[in-house]
Amino acid sequence: MRTSYAVGVDVGGTRIAAGLVERKGRIVKDNKTLTPKAGPFAVVDAVIELVEEVSAGVHSSEIAGIGIGLPAQIDFLRQSIEFCTNLPLAGVDVRALVMSRIRHQVTLDNDGNLAAFGEYRYGAAKGARDFAMITLGTGVGGGLFVNGEPYRGSRGLGGEVGHMVVQMDGPPCPCGGTGHIESYLGRAALAVEGQKAAAAHRGRQILEEAGGEVSAITAEHVVLASHKGDEAATAILMNAGLVLGRALVGIVNVLNPKLIVVGGGIGEACPFIVERAAQAIAEEALAGRRDVQVIPAELGNDAGLLGAAALAFDEHDSREGLHR
Amino acid sequence: MRTSYAVGVDVGGTRIAAGLVERKGRIVKDNKTLTPKAGPFAVVDAVIELVEEVSAGVHSSEIAGIGIGLPAQIDFLRQSIEFCTNLPLAGVDVRALVMSRIRHQVTLDNDGNLAAFGEYRYGAAKGARDFAMITLGTGVGGGLFVNGEPYRGSRGLGGEVGHMVVQMDGPPCPCGGTGHIESYLGRAALAVEGQKAAAAHRGRQILEEAGGEVSAITAEHVVLASHKGDEAATAILMNAGLVLGRALVGIVNVLNPKLIVVGGGIGEACPFIVERAAQAIAEEALAGRRDVQVIPAELGNDAGLLGAAALAFDEHDSREGLHR
Repeated sequence: MRTSYAVGVDVGGTRIAAGLVERKGRIVKDNKTLTPKAGPFAVVDAVIELVEEVSAGVHSSEIAGIGIGLPAQIDFLRQSIEFCTNLPLAGVDVRALVMSRIRHQVTLDNDGNLAAFGEYRYGAAKGARDFAMITLGTGVGGGLFVNGEPYRGSRGLGGEVGHMVVQMDGPPCPCGGTGHIESYLGRAALAVEGQKAAAAHRGRQILEEAGGEVSAITAEHVVLASHKGDEAATAILMNAGLVLGRALVGIVNVLNPKLIVVGGGIGEACPFIVERAAQAIAEEALAGRRDVQVIPAELGNDAGLLGAAALAFDEHDSREGLHR
Repeated sequence: MRTSYAVGVDVGGTRIAAGLVERKGRIVKDNKTLTPKAGPFAVVDAVIELVEEVSAGVHSSEIAGIGIGLPAQIDFLRQSIEFCTNLPLAGVDVRALVMSRIRHQVTLDNDGNLAAFGEYRYGAAKGARDFAMITLGTGVGGGLFVNGEPYRGSRGLGGEVGHMVVQMDGPPCPCGGTGHIESYLGRAALAVEGQKAAAAHRGRQILEEAGGEVSAITAEHVVLASHKGDEAATAILMNAGLVLGRALVGIVNVLNPKLIVVGGGIGEACPFIVERAAQAIAEEALAGRRDVQVIPAELGNDAGLLGAAALAFDEHDSREGLHR
């Protein structure tokens, strides 16, 4: 049976968003809530509540299923959560917990993989069979498409584009590693650079955005200051773009993608991070540099939610033996 | 028609090897020659001569085709050579030149891709659907398998595992980049480390291997000295293993491979480079570290030749509509 809707859920460290989505990608109804901090069951409760809200009034036979994106490494076949930095979900059977209370099929996936899925189905990567997505937000994540399919690796843990080593003696990464892309481009790293600049009496506008309090400076303050012409802020973000581009040289040389899509809150707020990265790739990558386009994402905050819905549609259709 | 043999050719910067190979991977007859330095046509002549030698006496209907591995980035669909550091082959239509004089189908591929293909079909990676191969030799190359197929990217230029940035302010790479894996693990880089150690009066055995001449020290002298217990030589190679492992953290996090195979002359001569790399991955990678085995290659110098033959068999079978 050809269903009309899927529910996409995007669980982040700060907020959870859910939407009722049509096959063509229109979000008919959506809602969001702050991510509860009271443990895994509170998160599951919040997810269920949002799903019920956005699907209220729609007959259950009309809904293909629920896709849930999590900021976690997920064994896709087993649907188990293997690693999760920001939420206490590792080892929790979120799928079973949700399915015990909602009569729909639930599929979990990594949030970066789903952002890639969303951009592939409905956004900047439509029709790109081989592409990489990188999401610049609190963490740095991403996802890969290979031969027109999401590629998650042997057990579904792949796509962690933010955790390539780009400087062996670089700063620590929240994941426990050293000198990863996220060590330079995560929100915390950009905030530290902003604080350093302000403490050294550069970046007056950065300090102003933060109400004059060095320790209150966040990545967003750096971005805002840069938009207002602050040179120190712009230098921080240009350097971030350079680091990103040099890291992506490896992706271009190893995977020869047609397209690299840069999304996430920071990626979308700073088009020149994307431009600087593209320039670094053009300068350093091997012959694949001539093939690759580096472009901003199109779906903004909805990429993960839309990708989760697209996944739910596809899982439904493959269960039913339908083909796209 | 089910043919019995394929000819595999492995063109390197130093020597060209060719072999007549049975379907099960036995090399029936092989031969090699030094790579001519007199331009592209001399290389093509040498390839043709070797192919004729190893296939002499076999009826042409028995031969599935010729596979040729080149140290070059190749547009696989167009069979065009896009980039070649060590030989003047970029833009030369090697396939057409060989086919104009030999009545067999010819297929070109990157040498690292073919080493991966060889190990997949006949060696250390048998049955591994998702794996990465890295070859440590004069250059550092490699190849990927994804879902049980060689993965070359959107235009066939992928698999250049040696050209990921691992240290943004690192030493120059022969490809023109900076701080790539090859900047640390290529033969030239290891030789420089050996020369530095000897010049600083460490690595007495390294110097001895080179006949007392600092400037004559090569990567092989470092390896030999290490095998004889020289501490400075061993430290150089252990550090190379650490750099390799930290670079491969990115491969593990992005691709979640089941297996990483380390080959090439240097890789096979130094099992502890492989061990040190495996340890670095175990220390730093995300959850995929529990899935991945890092092992030495099994086919030695024959990996590329055998992979070239395997490719020729597969191309023949797919032309004839046969399935493996």
